[in-house]
Amino acid sequence: MAHDRDLEWLGRRIRQLRTSRAFSQEELAERSGLHRNYIGGIERGERNVGVKALFALGRALSVSPADFFTDL
Amino acid sequence: MAHDRDLEWLGRRIRQLRTSRAFSQEELAERSGLHRNYIGGIERGERNVGVKALFALGRALSVSPADFFTDL
Repeated sequence: MAHDRDLEWLGRRIRQLRTSRAFSQEELAERSGLHRNYIGGIERGERNVGVKALFALGRALSVSPADFFTDL
Repeated sequence: MAHDRDLEWLGRRIRQLRTSRAFSQEELAERSGLHRNYIGGIERGERNVGVKALFALGRALSVSPADFFTDL
């Protein structure tokens, strides 16, 4: 899938939140129920992630999905 | 597709933002480049909408995608 600026921005933000909690991709995968490879693809901006996955990631990271779209 | 509480919540919020701007589904479809039927499905909580569509809807409604996940 072609890269997309919006997806790249979102992926960087999700990676930022994950690493701020010192979670590995494996740990976030376990907590969210998503596959680790899928999380890698999201963080690289390669996945047009659906909102169900965003809600799952938000719960796993203890943030609102809104925080994925908000700069630090 | 089975209904999902997260998707229903998000759909209501998007409908709320659309109607607060007095846009019809047709008008939001034209502004966002999404199909009107797809927007109807999103508002009914029947679509696991992807973030690319969320960014397009946000631009069409002049809000951040974060506002879709934030209560009034």
